[in-house]
Amino acid sequence: MKILLVGASGTLGRAIAQTLSHHEVLAAGRSSAQYPVDITDDASVEALLRKTGKLDAIVSAAGALHFGPLSEMKPADFAIGLNDKLLGQVRLALLGQHHLSDGGSITLTTGIVSAEPIRAGANASAVNRAIEGFVAGAACELPRGLRINAVSPSVLSESMDAYGAFFPGFEPVPAARAALAYRRSVEGVQSGRTFEVW
Amino acid sequence: MKILLVGASGTLGRAIAQTLSHHEVLAAGRSSAQYPVDITDDASVEALLRKTGKLDAIVSAAGALHFGPLSEMKPADFAIGLNDKLLGQVRLALLGQHHLSDGGSITLTTGIVSAEPIRAGANASAVNRAIEGFVAGAACELPRGLRINAVSPSVLSESMDAYGAFFPGFEPVPAARAALAYRRSVEGVQSGRTFEVW
Ligand SMILES: NC(=O)c1ccc[n+]([C@@H]2O[C@H](COP(=O)([O-])OP(=O)(O)OC[C@H]3O[C@@H](n4cnc5c(N)ncnc54)[C@H](OP(=O)(O)O)[C@@H]3O)[C@@H](O)[C@H]2O)c1
Ligand SMILES: NC(=O)c1ccc[n+]([C@@H]2O[C@H](COP(=O)([O-])OP(=O)(O)OC[C@H]3O[C@@H](n4cnc5c(N)ncnc54)[C@H](OP(=O)(O)O)[C@@H]3O)[C@@H](O)[C@H]2O)c1
Repeated sequence: MKILLVGASGTLGRAIAQTLSHHEVLAAGRSSAQYPVDITDDASVEALLRKTGKLDAIVSAAGALHFGPLSEMKPADFAIGLNDKLLGQVRLALLGQHHLSDGGSITLTTGIVSAEPIRAGANASAVNRAIEGFVAGAACELPRGLRINAVSPSVLSESMDAYGAFFPGFEPVPAARAALAYRRSVEGVQSGRTFEVW
Repeated sequence: MKILLVGASGTLGRAIAQTLSHHEVLAAGRSSAQYPVDITDDASVEALLRKTGKLDAIVSAAGALHFGPLSEMKPADFAIGLNDKLLGQVRLALLGQHHLSDGGSITLTTGIVSAEPIRAGANASAVNRAIEGFVAGAACELPRGLRINAVSPSVLSESMDAYGAFFPGFEPVPAARAALAYRRSVEGVQSGRTFEVW
């Protein structure tokens, strides 16, 4: 399969690239030399899709959120996650659907905070649930055997130094274990699902 | 209680106003003469909250979504629901939290499409789930006994002429029945909940 992987240089993306390495993986991201893209920008995503040509799968492991106390949160803070992790990944799906071969798939990234709130995480809970809702809705409308799923990892073992303090008592998962769910989505048969990895 | 009701002139809002009529209800909306507000605008919401003074409850029954086939959906279409029903109601909650008296509450509106996708409804599924995620996350951080919930009605009996075609086989609920859940949220003890009415 020819697979576009956005966020390929990230903590999660590197593990996904490894797990899908028996396929042709096009490694994209803002600072990618060969497949540069900014998912917050229509023109940038369109340009990437023209460059890649027809794809068998699109996988996203990118997208920023806002973390901060609710009492100090401004509407503009909340909009960060909406415009980046949510609309960025939805943009990839909406524009990418037309570049997939029959039976192709889209896999987006959500996260455990959709199901288990954390301190300073109201934006993450909202954005992650929205991605899961989009996937559930979109799956019902995709033609030509196209599929769409989301993967929801717990905090990654590799990220515990950076984010561990936000996740007291959460059991971290190695990125390589989370990556399996992306393979399940890309090579499997299900659609409209959120694969929880925790 | 002194209750700010945004969307008071709408199909759902009128029924909520009726159900809460034993309280002092401030009826707000874009075309309200006494409490005009546009929830898509920070300054407008701030001005309203200065005018109302301290509140015991904030209830929202406002917010637009995009409905349209996934195959034709553009990122800008999807952004409609993000900026209006989602960020609009979140704005009301984020700015409103500081104007609530101890033990006060916020009640937002989601809808059955979060749980049951419909044709042309990917934006609605995403936005409604996001509101439920925000409520779940925010409830864990609110101080002073403040509470926040969402109400998720099925399609309203009063809206079947307008939206019935999108909801084949869905059992509609009278707005007056949906309105009970808002009373449950305002006068009850729960927080972080989505009250389903279907
Ligand atoms: N780490 C965790 O514990 C964890 C747990 C659950 C869920 N997640 C989710 O998984 C995703 C990836 O997390 P991560 O920890 O792997 O992040 P990361 O290490 O910061 O990597 C992010 C990747 O996305 C790319 N990227 C960022 N913004 C982009 C944009 N606007 N357009 C295109 N590419 C962009 C980055 O490359 P460039 O910098 O070159 O753009 C990088 O390849 C996030 O959505 C996160 O919420 C993470
Ligand atoms: N109707 C249904 O079957 C149904 C079912 C489930 C969920 N819902 C949800 O319930 C909510 C209300 O639906 P509805 O059918 O009652 O709508 P509606 O009859 O169109 O009423 C909308 C109300 O919100 C106000 N409003 C709209 N945009 C606003 C803005 N930007 N700022 C402030 N006020 C605004 C309107 O007043 P002005 O025009 O004066 O601003 C009006 O009072 C929506 O979020 C909808 O998704 C509806």
